[in-house]
Amino acid sequence: MNVVIIGGVAAGPKAGSRVHRLCPEAQVTLIEKGEFLSYAGCGLPYYVSGVVKDQKELMCTPIGVVRDSVFFRNVKNVEVLNRTEATKVDRGSKEVTVVALESGKEEKISYDKLIFATGATPIVPPIEGTDLKNVFTLQNIEDSEGIKAALAEDKAKDVVIVGGGLIGLEMTEALAKKGCRVTIVEKLPQILPILDWEIAYQVSKYLEVRGVKVKTATTLTAIKGKERVESVVTDNGEVPCDFVIMSVGVRPNVFLAKDAGLEIGKTGGIKVNEMMQTSDPDIFAAGDCVESVDLVTGKPCFIPLGSTANKQGRVAANNACGFKDAFPGVLGSTVCKLFNFNIGRTGLGEMQAKEEGFDVVTVLSPAPDKAHFYPEAKPIMMKLVIDKNTRRLLGLQAVGLGVVDKRIDVAAMAITAKMTVDDIANLDLCYAPPYSPAMDNIITASNVARNKLDGRFQSVTPMEVKEKIDRGDDFVFLDVRSPGEYEEVRLDNTVLIPLGKLRGRLSEIPKDKEIITFCKISLRGYEAALILQTAGFKDVKVMDGGVVMWPYKIGK
Amino acid sequence: MNVVIIGGVAAGPKAGSRVHRLCPEAQVTLIEKGEFLSYAGCGLPYYVSGVVKDQKELMCTPIGVVRDSVFFRNVKNVEVLNRTEATKVDRGSKEVTVVALESGKEEKISYDKLIFATGATPIVPPIEGTDLKNVFTLQNIEDSEGIKAALAEDKAKDVVIVGGGLIGLEMTEALAKKGCRVTIVEKLPQILPILDWEIAYQVSKYLEVRGVKVKTATTLTAIKGKERVESVVTDNGEVPCDFVIMSVGVRPNVFLAKDAGLEIGKTGGIKVNEMMQTSDPDIFAAGDCVESVDLVTGKPCFIPLGSTANKQGRVAANNACGFKDAFPGVLGSTVCKLFNFNIGRTGLGEMQAKEEGFDVVTVLSPAPDKAHFYPEAKPIMMKLVIDKNTRRLLGLQAVGLGVVDKRIDVAAMAITAKMTVDDIANLDLCYAPPYSPAMDNIITASNVARNKLDGRFQSVTPMEVKEKIDRGDDFVFLDVRSPGEYEEVRLDNTVLIPLGKLRGRLSEIPKDKEIITFCKISLRGYEAALILQTAGFKDVKVMDGGVVMWPYKIGK
Repeated sequence: MNVVIIGGVAAGPKAGSRVHRLCPEAQVTLIEKGEFLSYAGCGLPYYVSGVVKDQKELMCTPIGVVRDSVFFRNVKNVEVLNRTEATKVDRGSKEVTVVALESGKEEKISYDKLIFATGATPIVPPIEGTDLKNVFTLQNIEDSEGIKAALAEDKAKDVVIVGGGLIGLEMTEALAKKGCRVTIVEKLPQILPILDWEIAYQVSKYLEVRGVKVKTATTLTAIKGKERVESVVTDNGEVPCDFVIMSVGVRPNVFLAKDAGLEIGKTGGIKVNEMMQTSDPDIFAAGDCVESVDLVTGKPCFIPLGSTANKQGRVAANNACGFKDAFPGVLGSTVCKLFNFNIGRTGLGEMQAKEEGFDVVTVLSPAPDKAHFYPEAKPIMMKLVIDKNTRRLLGLQAVGLGVVDKRIDVAAMAITAKMTVDDIANLDLCYAPPYSPAMDNIITASNVARNKLDGRFQSVTPMEVKEKIDRGDDFVFLDVRSPGEYEEVRLDNTVLIPLGKLRGRLSEIPKDKEIITFCKISLRGYEAALILQTAGFKDVKVMDGGVVMWPYKIGK
Repeated sequence: MNVVIIGGVAAGPKAGSRVHRLCPEAQVTLIEKGEFLSYAGCGLPYYVSGVVKDQKELMCTPIGVVRDSVFFRNVKNVEVLNRTEATKVDRGSKEVTVVALESGKEEKISYDKLIFATGATPIVPPIEGTDLKNVFTLQNIEDSEGIKAALAEDKAKDVVIVGGGLIGLEMTEALAKKGCRVTIVEKLPQILPILDWEIAYQVSKYLEVRGVKVKTATTLTAIKGKERVESVVTDNGEVPCDFVIMSVGVRPNVFLAKDAGLEIGKTGGIKVNEMMQTSDPDIFAAGDCVESVDLVTGKPCFIPLGSTANKQGRVAANNACGFKDAFPGVLGSTVCKLFNFNIGRTGLGEMQAKEEGFDVVTVLSPAPDKAHFYPEAKPIMMKLVIDKNTRRLLGLQAVGLGVVDKRIDVAAMAITAKMTVDDIANLDLCYAPPYSPAMDNIITASNVARNKLDGRFQSVTPMEVKEKIDRGDDFVFLDVRSPGEYEEVRLDNTVLIPLGKLRGRLSEIPKDKEIITFCKISLRGYEAALILQTAGFKDVKVMDGGVVMWPYKIGK
C-alpha cells in the first residue's frame, strides 16, 4: 500500500508515524514544501522570546532526537520529500505531482490512500506596504528566524502587532521580553474575540498594567516606510514603529484539494466526515486545513489548533489503514499565557450561545485558585455559560494570575459529557490547599448557577447595572464591603453598609426601591441580599462578579 | 423550624450557612466541642511549617473576616455554642442534650431537623507511651499549636512520623522545613496505600533524595521516654527521637449516632442515603463521620476528606430544608504536595480493581507535563487502570515534579462520565506549550491503552520483568536508548542497540528468543518492538514505563 501525505508539520508527521505503526509494510511518503519537519509551531513565540534557546528543540522528540528526514526514514520508515511542493492531485490516476523546489524537477507519486495535512496560512490584508522589510507573519521556523534577526539589529524597538488574537498576545509577551514597546491594533471593539467582551476587558486591563498599548476598533489601512517599515496607518491615527507582526488570523490551505474537486466546507476548510475522510473515500485530511464540528452546536467550525491537528492526524491514519476510528469534534478549548496572566476558554461564549438560540444563565465568579490561606493562591475570574432549559454547562472562560487551564479542562470534560451544573457541583475533584479551594472554583460557580436557576436569588450583570446608571435609573447601589476596602477602590453612586452591620442598619435603606448589592466578589453581596429579602425588601438583586469583575474604568 | 447541627469544622458550618440561605426564618444552632469554628483542617500542616503565618488565616473568609460566633450570628444568623459537647440525642422527644464544657451546665435543645457533622478522630494505637510529652496527632488548631510550641523549644530535632499516609507526608514536609530530621514508620510494606506499590515506590525514592528515612513493614510497639518521648520501639529496631506524630488514620465519630440508635455502615461511618439522610428521616449526617459510596464499584467506603465534607454539608442542608438534592458518591480523588513532588490519585488502583473482579489493562506513562521544549516542563509518571471489557478508565495515579492535579481532575471527570479510553483520546483539552504537551499526557496514555486493548503490541510490567530476571528466564532485555543514556544509568542484564541503529543490526538479535524492549520511557521501546515485529521476530514485548518507572534499586 502506498500512502502519500502532503504536509510535514503537525498532522502530517503524526499520520505518517501512525500509518507506519499500523501497516509496517506500507510505503509512506511525506511531502513538505518547507525545509523543516514536525516542528512545534505553537512554540515559535517562545523561540522568538528566547525562552526556547535553540531552533532544534522545537523539532526534537522528548529525548532530544531531531525529527529530520533521516529520523523519519530510520525510525518511522517514512520517506520524506522536503523542500518539495505538491502541485496537483489526479484522483483518476491516483497520482500526486510534486516539484522539488531547488532543482525544479517534477515527478509523479502514486497513492492508494492520500492524506491532506496542508495546514493554514496567515492572512495578510490587501493593503499597501505589507512587503516592506520588518513586516512579519509568524507561521514557520523561517519567520521566527527573520524576527530574531530583526530584533538583533537594534535593542529597544516599537512594534505594532496587528490582530489581538492568541498569537498576537503570545507575540506581545515575546517581544516585550526582548525589550520592545508593543502596540496592539485590533479591528474589532475588543481583543480576543474568542472571549466575551467583559472577560476580554480583564485581559486589556492587564495589558495596560504591563505597559502594552491596546487600540481596539482600529483598522489598519496601510503600512508606510521607505525600505523598511516606519509606521502603520489606521482609521484611528498613525503609529510609528520599527516593525510589524501581522497576526490577523489564518486561512486553510485548500487550493490543491479544491483543484482536485474535493468538497470544501462553508467555513473554508476541507470538508471531512468523522473518519477525517474527504468527499473522495481514498483521501483523508487533518489539521489546520480541515473544517471541524462544534461539539455543542453540531455545526461546522474552523478552529485551527495544534492539539486538534495531532489527534486528527492519528484518526485519519487509522481510517486510511482500514481501522475504524472517529474524531467527534471540538470545543474550541484553548489557553494562552500572557506574562503572568493565564487566559483560557472552552465551549460557547454567551454571545455565541445566544446566537445559537440557547436561553442562557451566566455566572461571573472571581475567587482564589487555591485555598485562600495558602500564600501562593492567586485570583482567577471565571464566566460560566449555562443552558437554562437543560441546566447543562455550555462554556467556560477563565482569566487571571492563578491556574485556569485545569478549570478549562474540567469544563471541557463536563461539556463533552453533557453534564449539568448539578452534576458538576458534586464532582469528586482532588483537593489539597496548594492546588485548589476545598470546593473547586468550578464547583462553587456551579452552585451559584444552581441558586440562580432555582430562583434563590436575582442577579444582574455589571453591564446591566452600567446601563441603569447611564439611564439615570433610581435604585440603591449597595456596597457591603468594609470601610477599608471602600477607601481603596469604589464604584460611583454607591451606598456603603458593611455586611456585618447590615442587620442593624436596615432602616437606612428605602423599602420601595430596587436594591442592587455587591462586594468585592459578590459573595457578601449575596449574603446581604438574603438578609434584605428576609427583612421584607421585595426588589433585591446581586451584581455578578463584584468590584473585581466590573468591566469599566474605576475612578478611585 | 429548629435545625440543630452537631460539629463546627467543615460540613457543619457549611450546612448551617446553607440552611440559613434556604430558610432564613429557621432557627439554626451549631454545637461545637472545641473553641474554634469553621477552620481549614487541611491547612494545619501549612500552619505548622509556617507557610501559613497566622492561625486566624485558617478561620477566615476569603476576604479576611474570622468566622467566629459573632460572624455566624451576624452574617449567617446561626447561633453557635462552642466549647459545648452534645452528649445525647433523644429521637423520641427530638432533643439534643448539650453540656457547656466550662460551666458544666447541661441543657436540652429541640430540633425539627438534626445534622450530624461530628467528624473523625485520629487513631492512636493501644501501645505504651502515647501519653508522653511530644507525642502528637494532628486534628485541630490546638494540636498544631502544641507541635509549634514543641518545635520552638529546640531547633534541629529528630521526629518519627508514624503512618505514611497523606497527613504523614504533609507533616514530613512541614517538619523538614522546620529543620527536623524525619523518619517515617509505616506498618504496611509501602507508604501511601492509596497508591499501587510501584507508584508509591517513586514517592519513597523521592523522600530518600530529600533525606527522609522511610521504614516500611515496620510496626510500632511502644513509645519510650521519661517525661517526654525519647524513642519509638518497632519490630524493626528502636528509633531515638525528640517527638512523634501519630498519623495512622482516623476513625469516624459515631458514638452519639450509635447511641441514638442510628444505623452504622460496615465501614464504621454513619449510614446515609444519597440525600445524606440517616436511618431516621429527620436526621442527616455529612463529612468525616459518614460512610460514602464508591462511584466505580457502587460499594460503601470510608474516605474522609475536606472537599467531600463541604459538598455533603450542602446536600444535607438542602434536603433538611425540603429541597431535594443528591450526593452521588466519591472516587477517592486526592492530591498531596511533598516538597516539590506532587502526588495524586482517583478511582480504583490496580489491586483494588482486581479485587473487585475487573479484568484490567494498565499503562505506565512517564512524560513531561508541558511541551517538552518548554523550559519549565517537569516529568510526571502516570498509571492508568482500564477495564478490558468496557474499555472504561477505572483509575489514575500520577506523581512527579510536574503538574498532576489537572490530570487527576480530568480522570475523575472521565471516570464519573464512564468514558472509555477511546473517548479520552479525542478530548478537546486546552493546549499551549506552557501548560501541556500538544496531546496531553492523559490522551497519550489513553492511546497507549488503546494500542494494548487492540492487540497492537504486547507489554510487560517492570514487576513481571523483574520476576523473569529473578527466575533466570532466558530472554533478550533490549535497551534501545543512546550510548550516552546507557552510560549514565542502566538496568542489569541488558543488550544495548540504539533505536536509530536497530534496522541495521537486526542480525545481532536471536530470532527464537523472547525479546523485551525498553528505553527511558518506552516510547522508543515501542518503536523498536514494531521494527522487530515487522522484521519477523515473533515474541516481542515492550516494558511499560521504561527506566524511569523501574521500581527497584538501579546499580549504576
